[in-house]
Amino acid sequence: MNPSPEEIRIGLIGFGTVGQGVGQYLQERADALTRAAGRRLVLGGVAVRDLSRRRTVDLPPGLLTADPWKLVRDPGLPLLCELAGGTEDPRAWTAEALRLGKTVVTANKALLCDHGEELFALAHEHGGRILFEASVAGGIPVIEVLRDSLAANRVERILGILNGTSNYILTRMEQDGLSFGEVLESARANGFVEADESLDLDGWDAAHKTVLLAWLTQGRWVSTGSMTVEGIRRVRLDDLRYAREMGYRIKLIGAVERVGTAGRLALSVRPSLVPLDTLLADVDGVFNAVRIDADLAGPLDLIGRGAGQDPTASAVLADLVAAARQWESSTPLPVHLAPPDPPELAAPAEQEHAAYLRLTVVDRSGVLSEVAGSLSRAGISIASVLQREHGGHDRATLVLLTHRCTQAALDEAVRALAADESVGDDFLVCPILD
Amino acid sequence: MNPSPEEIRIGLIGFGTVGQGVGQYLQERADALTRAAGRRLVLGGVAVRDLSRRRTVDLPPGLLTADPWKLVRDPGLPLLCELAGGTEDPRAWTAEALRLGKTVVTANKALLCDHGEELFALAHEHGGRILFEASVAGGIPVIEVLRDSLAANRVERILGILNGTSNYILTRMEQDGLSFGEVLESARANGFVEADESLDLDGWDAAHKTVLLAWLTQGRWVSTGSMTVEGIRRVRLDDLRYAREMGYRIKLIGAVERVGTAGRLALSVRPSLVPLDTLLADVDGVFNAVRIDADLAGPLDLIGRGAGQDPTASAVLADLVAAARQWESSTPLPVHLAPPDPPELAAPAEQEHAAYLRLTVVDRSGVLSEVAGSLSRAGISIASVLQREHGGHDRATLVLLTHRCTQAALDEAVRALAADESVGDDFLVCPILD
Repeated sequence: MNPSPEEIRIGLIGFGTVGQGVGQYLQERADALTRAAGRRLVLGGVAVRDLSRRRTVDLPPGLLTADPWKLVRDPGLPLLCELAGGTEDPRAWTAEALRLGKTVVTANKALLCDHGEELFALAHEHGGRILFEASVAGGIPVIEVLRDSLAANRVERILGILNGTSNYILTRMEQDGLSFGEVLESARANGFVEADESLDLDGWDAAHKTVLLAWLTQGRWVSTGSMTVEGIRRVRLDDLRYAREMGYRIKLIGAVERVGTAGRLALSVRPSLVPLDTLLADVDGVFNAVRIDADLAGPLDLIGRGAGQDPTASAVLADLVAAARQWESSTPLPVHLAPPDPPELAAPAEQEHAAYLRLTVVDRSGVLSEVAGSLSRAGISIASVLQREHGGHDRATLVLLTHRCTQAALDEAVRALAADESVGDDFLVCPILD
Repeated sequence: MNPSPEEIRIGLIGFGTVGQGVGQYLQERADALTRAAGRRLVLGGVAVRDLSRRRTVDLPPGLLTADPWKLVRDPGLPLLCELAGGTEDPRAWTAEALRLGKTVVTANKALLCDHGEELFALAHEHGGRILFEASVAGGIPVIEVLRDSLAANRVERILGILNGTSNYILTRMEQDGLSFGEVLESARANGFVEADESLDLDGWDAAHKTVLLAWLTQGRWVSTGSMTVEGIRRVRLDDLRYAREMGYRIKLIGAVERVGTAGRLALSVRPSLVPLDTLLADVDGVFNAVRIDADLAGPLDLIGRGAGQDPTASAVLADLVAAARQWESSTPLPVHLAPPDPPELAAPAEQEHAAYLRLTVVDRSGVLSEVAGSLSRAGISIASVLQREHGGHDRATLVLLTHRCTQAALDEAVRALAADESVGDDFLVCPILD
């Protein structure tokens, strides 16, 4: 390969919304991208699932193929851009491209979350690179900021609003006084929800991104199976109202934290009470936000569009430009800014926070003392009982704030409450962020 | 010079607060910085003004010199880090280093604002680079975000809270109900104000940064003499209260905008009314913020610490790492992301906004009609008269909001009002941001 080529040819796999955006701007903004990259970025091949489908972006003839492997193996396409979705095929393509020493740009958070350890090792072994700005928070350049701008820092905590659909639903519920189900219905109708709804609504999409942020800043791959992941399905309109009365909003927060005296690593995705006087509390609708606590730069809030054709294409194009700019450099991009001795994972007993509990209980005397007993046996002390409202159907709502307690204690209390016939399954437990 | 050296030796000029921070972390975090940079960053010489002064950072013996030129000319120090302050000496050092093909990292916004055109031309001519992350908004990586992460974008507008001292003073006035003079007194006592107070209080520091942001995104060097620059001296506690009643806060905003149908370029630094429901309105104290309207990525808000030893050192270190990482690359860093045909400067008649006017007038009948007459003759129509309060000493306060009008009309009206004996010099005119 010419060490300082005048153009770099890109193999693009996946020509959906984001892929078409990338293709469009690679053509329309070729001159500006050439100035930024120091050389031309040229689309050398585009793999699509269905050759006959009509597309909004015109491509030079002969560029389309239905065979992604043709692009992966073509030595004339040293830069592979993977925007296909799914994990197993992209894993195979990416691994092969890296074995061939290619640079890979991907927006695929699930791929990296599941197979990042293997893929980054392959990149390291064969001198290739993986760039993945578009995989977390779309148009917010959080990967570049963490890896490059904060290179001298230790990152102590990251809190992110990382799933735009969840944030949109919570915002609409609060602003329009609608239930979760009503907003979900309209979000579905508008195509705002992933085909696999669980990615958005059960927190998995945010969890994938949280895992990437943890790896980037702490140097450890954490499986989503070993972290607390809860989505927004349990959040009721009343929860949003109670939270606001107490000076908070409820946001779905992906958190990467160093906890306890040993500084162990804790990851979670949970609906969380965010103080009204923080910037995260002001992030509405489909917007994403990342709050980074860096030890030298200080707290840094980045807020922008987390998804959509143009913001995501912007992030992919930034990676293509960065790859091209460093093309002849033999200095490997650092894969992350974390120290070589990554922290151990924190046990639930090492994670502490105050919590918000909303329980729907049988409306009879003695229930509060039963609930208080369950909490007390788990070692949780109640800071205040905030609401006790009678609902219909012999049910009442109980809202409690706890003092700081461990996640282990909360887990135990939740198990006990869920097993209690007077309480049942209709409850919400949220950490309260400092 | 070895094209892929194992270490890069740095000549550091200026060992004040930021310089000592850089020196300290270059030593304490050498391993992490080496991993990030791909090679060791070594302090090879430090030029100070006074060799006998005691410092908090220990340096290896023999590193200090009182002669900056020794570092500038030493071929063994290919990376020059200029943290001295002032403009004329740094201009000479930087120019000479660039002529020698060196890379220069600087935090000196006044230097770049006054001499950037010359210095970047020298860098281009001799294959050197200038990196200047620390010159704008301290710990907020706005330069890297604009130049690298948004490489595919056109930036349509930037609004920045760029001077921490001004923001601190406005915040303290509002939170503690104090006058400008009272807060200034305490800020001086705490060392929060630059020795040259006019840099902070009259908007010049923010203007330097605004000029750099305009050049970076629009490709044109604008002299501070050809833009509106007003600091916070005229802002009274009452203005902050009136603004809040109307749903705004007053912030000192540095703005880079493309205006009118021709998309001409307008720069300004002015106290401005910022809607309460925007993130900029929530940025308090010494924090800085930059709002970027990018055409693909969408709106992006970056909020963090704009000054201080560690945040500024963090930005300088990020530049040193970026320079080292790309050391053997012959691809020049793009100097900015703007198109080769920079926009013309907008005339005041092309810049339009609604405005807030607070006038302190002689308290007698007919004054309102005089004021309304002055505005009307300038072509400004009044949207509402919000306050008319009697003060002491036969003065009354008049607060008006105008409909959208041109800056030229406002300038004319202000001249007429200032010449009116019933009004005099005690007034404030602020644009209202959309």
